[in-house]
Amino acid sequence: MRMRKKKHCAERMEQCGDILIKETDGLRGRWSEVFENDNPIHIEIGCGKGAFVTGMAKLHPDINFIAVEREENVIVMAMEKAVGEGLTNIRFMDMDACRIDEFFQKGEICRIYLNFSDPWKKSKQAKRRLSHKTFLDKYKKILNEGDYIWFKTDNIKLFEFSLNSFAAENFKLENISFDLHNSDFEGNVVTEYEQRFVDLGQPIYRLEAVYLGWRDQR
Amino acid sequence: MRMRKKKHCAERMEQCGDILIKETDGLRGRWSEVFENDNPIHIEIGCGKGAFVTGMAKLHPDINFIAVEREENVIVMAMEKAVGEGLTNIRFMDMDACRIDEFFQKGEICRIYLNFSDPWKKSKQAKRRLSHKTFLDKYKKILNEGDYIWFKTDNIKLFEFSLNSFAAENFKLENISFDLHNSDFEGNVVTEYEQRFVDLGQPIYRLEAVYLGWRDQR
Repeated sequence: MRMRKKKHCAERMEQCGDILIKETDGLRGRWSEVFENDNPIHIEIGCGKGAFVTGMAKLHPDINFIAVEREENVIVMAMEKAVGEGLTNIRFMDMDACRIDEFFQKGEICRIYLNFSDPWKKSKQAKRRLSHKTFLDKYKKILNEGDYIWFKTDNIKLFEFSLNSFAAENFKLENISFDLHNSDFEGNVVTEYEQRFVDLGQPIYRLEAVYLGWRDQR
Repeated sequence: MRMRKKKHCAERMEQCGDILIKETDGLRGRWSEVFENDNPIHIEIGCGKGAFVTGMAKLHPDINFIAVEREENVIVMAMEKAVGEGLTNIRFMDMDACRIDEFFQKGEICRIYLNFSDPWKKSKQAKRRLSHKTFLDKYKKILNEGDYIWFKTDNIKLFEFSLNSFAAENFKLENISFDLHNSDFEGNVVTEYEQRFVDLGQPIYRLEAVYLGWRDQR
């Protein structure tokens, strides 16, 4: 189901000024110029209403964040949050995740966040999951060895799928949690969606996947 | 809680003849002589009443199995099962798992089964869990690169702990399942303990951990 078009969406997006990347041609390899510094760049694929990425950008002023979201009605809310907070270390894109390797060169992104991605429940839809091999192969093109993907979900089936997928594709798993909010993990920034599950007392599943490089893939 | 001593336990064990390894001195490196063939050897640590290991031994006559269990009252039942089935590819030991590297040399065992091990729920007991680093370091001394540990449990906390432990200690995870009995995995041999959970409709968690060798540990 697509969301109903929010009122004055284009106009509201316009008001957020330069934090939306409109022209991507030629940006590959030149993202430090966008941010006007050489700080490391993290990307969230599917930022939704932006609570996570704006929270992270606030907590980590020395990191640059790129938030990707395809839904205009939603990204506009995230952008308004960022503008409202006066954050300068964040940019937004409405890119499709499968094109990520077209816009970033290897090493340009050093962490990827996948938060509450669509589980695509039917097995014939598995290829659309953001932790499917198809996507992991693209992430590998932009990450360096030792770089991280942080993944969290409320969906146990997606979590099980993702554990297997990361492990199979030469990522080392760390900090696997079956109940993030009752774990030792510190510094969790809660998404809007996540908060609903926490309020209901339902567990959040989380993992970190370190890319081990191509060298010793088996 | 220790089990009450079963009647005539010593006598019943005696009747199972040579399938109980009584004298372990000098066996290290010479297990093929015990089995009188060069077939691969798998070991189950904590075989309980033996449904798993006897089931496996029956299914795989070309593999030798060693079943370890510390509880005499229990191991005697497992041994009687093996004798009753006329299995010749199985031996029993009452060894403590922490001594495993004293009895086997590297490469002598090519698979380890950990089924429904004691979860040792308190965190100060973590070191006793059979998937704790202390034990994994011992398993590494007897496994070769590419060898497997098969692990299953009904305990979600032990499963979470074990996923992290295997991943941290240079095992690659495969076939992770959060609900073994509703998964695609074929050839599962059910333990007595497992059957109770299945009857109650509770999930069984399972994983396979492939040892990647010392070379690229990070």
